[in-house]
Amino acid sequence: MNRLLLNCDIGESFGSWTMGLDAEVMPFIDCANIACGFHAGDPSIMRKTVSLALANGVQIGAHPAYQDLAGFGRRSMAYAAQELQDLLHYQIGALDGICRAQGGRVSYVKPHGAMYNDMMANPAQLRAVIEAVAHYDPDLPLMLMATRDNSAAQALGDEYGLTLWFEAFADRAYDSAGRLVSRQAPGAVHHDPEAIIAQALTIARGDALAASDGSALILHANTLCVHGDNASSVAAVQRIREALDRQRAS
Amino acid sequence: MNRLLLNCDIGESFGSWTMGLDAEVMPFIDCANIACGFHAGDPSIMRKTVSLALANGVQIGAHPAYQDLAGFGRRSMAYAAQELQDLLHYQIGALDGICRAQGGRVSYVKPHGAMYNDMMANPAQLRAVIEAVAHYDPDLPLMLMATRDNSAAQALGDEYGLTLWFEAFADRAYDSAGRLVSRQAPGAVHHDPEAIIAQALTIARGDALAASDGSALILHANTLCVHGDNASSVAAVQRIREALDRQRAS
Amino acid sequence: MNRLLLNCDIGESFGSWTMGLDAEVMPFIDCANIACGFHAGDPSIMRKTVSLALANGVQIGAHPAYQDLAGFGRRSMAYAAQELQDLLHYQIGALDGICRAQGGRVSYVKPHGAMYNDMMANPAQLRAVIEAVAHYDPDLPLMLMATRDNSAAQALGDEYGLTLWFEAFADRAYDSAGRLVSRQAPGAVHHDPEAIIAQALTIARGDALAASDGSALILHANTLCVHGDNASSVAAVQRIREALDRQRAS
Amino acid sequence: MNRLLLNCDIGESFGSWTMGLDAEVMPFIDCANIACGFHAGDPSIMRKTVSLALANGVQIGAHPAYQDLAGFGRRSMAYAAQELQDLLHYQIGALDGICRAQGGRVSYVKPHGAMYNDMMANPAQLRAVIEAVAHYDPDLPLMLMATRDNSAAQALGDEYGLTLWFEAFADRAYDSAGRLVSRQAPGAVHHDPEAIIAQALTIARGDALAASDGSALILHANTLCVHGDNASSVAAVQRIREALDRQRAS
Repeated sequence: MNRLLLNCDIGESFGSWTMGLDAEVMPFIDCANIACGFHAGDPSIMRKTVSLALANGVQIGAHPAYQDLAGFGRRSMAYAAQELQDLLHYQIGALDGICRAQGGRVSYVKPHGAMYNDMMANPAQLRAVIEAVAHYDPDLPLMLMATRDNSAAQALGDEYGLTLWFEAFADRAYDSAGRLVSRQAPGAVHHDPEAIIAQALTIARGDALAASDGSALILHANTLCVHGDNASSVAAVQRIREALDRQRAS
Repeated sequence: MNRLLLNCDIGESFGSWTMGLDAEVMPFIDCANIACGFHAGDPSIMRKTVSLALANGVQIGAHPAYQDLAGFGRRSMAYAAQELQDLLHYQIGALDGICRAQGGRVSYVKPHGAMYNDMMANPAQLRAVIEAVAHYDPDLPLMLMATRDNSAAQALGDEYGLTLWFEAFADRAYDSAGRLVSRQAPGAVHHDPEAIIAQALTIARGDALAASDGSALILHANTLCVHGDNASSVAAVQRIREALDRQRAS
Repeated sequence: MNRLLLNCDIGESFGSWTMGLDAEVMPFIDCANIACGFHAGDPSIMRKTVSLALANGVQIGAHPAYQDLAGFGRRSMAYAAQELQDLLHYQIGALDGICRAQGGRVSYVKPHGAMYNDMMANPAQLRAVIEAVAHYDPDLPLMLMATRDNSAAQALGDEYGLTLWFEAFADRAYDSAGRLVSRQAPGAVHHDPEAIIAQALTIARGDALAASDGSALILHANTLCVHGDNASSVAAVQRIREALDRQRAS
Repeated sequence: MNRLLLNCDIGESFGSWTMGLDAEVMPFIDCANIACGFHAGDPSIMRKTVSLALANGVQIGAHPAYQDLAGFGRRSMAYAAQELQDLLHYQIGALDGICRAQGGRVSYVKPHGAMYNDMMANPAQLRAVIEAVAHYDPDLPLMLMATRDNSAAQALGDEYGLTLWFEAFADRAYDSAGRLVSRQAPGAVHHDPEAIIAQALTIARGDALAASDGSALILHANTLCVHGDNASSVAAVQRIREALDRQRAS
């Protein structure tokens, strides 16, 4: 069984505003998706976040977004494919520059918010993102969402020689297509830590989850998305970390 | 005699706004100081500008600035030294990312506007800039202003192992300290193309200029700052280029 | 016959970047749609533009946009209705503040770019815009696009007690529904000044245009959108102005 | 004895970032200095903040700033006087627009951060601010810092017919000139609630404080600046409110 990496959005403070318990969650994760200034993360926040990741031996991922600070990158914006690629190169490069000054490097890419959702909903946009990362550095994996059938995305990645890291969620319900159930629907978000840990372990084993319609759903995932927003989510990450480590050791 | 490089601010359009005759001036210059998004140059403009520089075999310089789009980076801002370094790493990295996607690289750094002026006026800020560039990549030269006595700046550069490229101006009057005469003063800016070319050739030969008080002023310069704002300035650049080439050939 | 007002997007410079021949076109128009800082027009540009409008006795319209300076407000963005209303109140108020300092007032509202297009395409968004203007000041007319049938929009305006000013275009072809033919289609944009003037006069008389499918199209319009981008468009505006004045005098 | 108004910086959240306990502190203050979008406070935050102020019967003050979101308006920026006035008109107007949609109005102005400090340090800038407010609406008081001798500021205010509201601080030590002791100096900030309340009552009575050099300092103040950053500062505001109310009642 491959190790299931824990990835977490990090460095989402901005200027005088603080968001997330970055220092607290960093010891428990493998991959830090670091904001690159367009939805969060000014250059000084980025420097501190990179420093924290390096100190914890955590992989640094670029977490680029649409240029929408007031909307936290969560509003869809109608970028042309070329504009989107320019945004990606700018932001990945900016984070790489901050890393380089500290002896680090960006080692993967995960789009943020609406850019991530639009990429999952629109194959042309997924192609644009894959091509952009490949042109920047074909050795950088792209993180995207695992669904019931990853083959179309995988074919696109293969076309550009790009490694894809599929991510799953331990705290969200899935529909039968392997898409997340809308947060508006009842039961969409798991709040019980035991349920979250159980789902994490199920995904790590490659076993089937129960989708929202009761069908069996196997997600082929390389990484699990976790959250460092507050003390209880950090505690959940620690427990997931420990449960996964025990599972691997057993 | 070393070749006097011609450097020019380039890529200072933004979004739907156009500034400068970049395509027209590019064939005559050696070094393009490309805006990095904080005073001008959004990611798409940067991509087009890098492409143009690569097509013309022109060196790509990062032209970072204070974060002040409405003020075009010309208003002094009270950044702490560390914040300034973060700004530099972010912007140099961003341009490097845009370059990388096209097979290019940033090959030097020249701060823009108020960041440049503050660096020349304040040794602590010059040290911060030199250190920032050295931490990013000690092989990247920093472009700064030649004055009567470059030794203090040179000592700082040596301390960090950084190459400095001193720049002079062919269209500006100098005072006896080798500082530019204020644009408000009469005679501060040369408008006569013959005078501009003569000053360029004098600087290239290493001969003395007449400072504003009549004293002799020798500027040890590696590069000459030229302008592509409009058709007449581009014509002047072409004539400077040809005059320098003839001088070297003779 | 009511007078057909000429409206023009104005004040779309930003910082050091210039766009449009505002001073040249201002004498020929009735209504200046002034950018409010979110797609163009920083506070100093806005002050100069308001001053120019007041000097020419031109009505000042707020021309609010999505917050997207790099995209010039032309990219659709997924704002919630309440967010959109907040954007409108902020920008109308900002321009009103600039006006107030000079003894002027905003006297109508015309959304810009993607905000305008989305409002015309989406009745819920049109309602949000109408309600926002009504809450700001129900005496401010809202400018929107005349189509074959303005009744649905008019009913919404009536519901909020808001005056609507329908605008038509003299330089664009219309389809049979009274929508603009896409710029990508052949014949979508009229370049011949005579054709533009003829269409302006036809609209002013309330006579039928020939739609792209040959059908007769009557547009009930209060205002005509003209352009001050360059010398030839300004010349066209002057000719339209003179032709309309002659038509009214005859 | 005039009532000493309690003023507090409010509405300094932005987008997804939260700052300050606005709802908690609002019941205890008289005047809310509401951020206008340039250092904090996007249009939606501004709408919520205005709504909260109106619900609590608190006066709404515009709290304009330099355009520096990443620096929270705390970095000095070299604006020309006219540019500064344009910034003020834009931001006051924007907040007034948000207010107007809810039936409210801006009723005073207090510059934020570096704009405030620069205004207190530089008479030309103070004049520019006073003139800007007077041109916007001469009935809006300007809030500025009380010092040992307010007469120069008062003379400027009188010249423009503008009411000045001088503010004092209950939690800060003063030097003999009535300027705040630098936060870097020992004893600059009072942390003991009893000391803070005592200083508030002394200022309210018009009695002398002990300046940092032991000299007696009388501050003629109309308002006291209080803070809603966290639970303990809100508790302090409540105690100041109650102590001032008891003092007035006795």
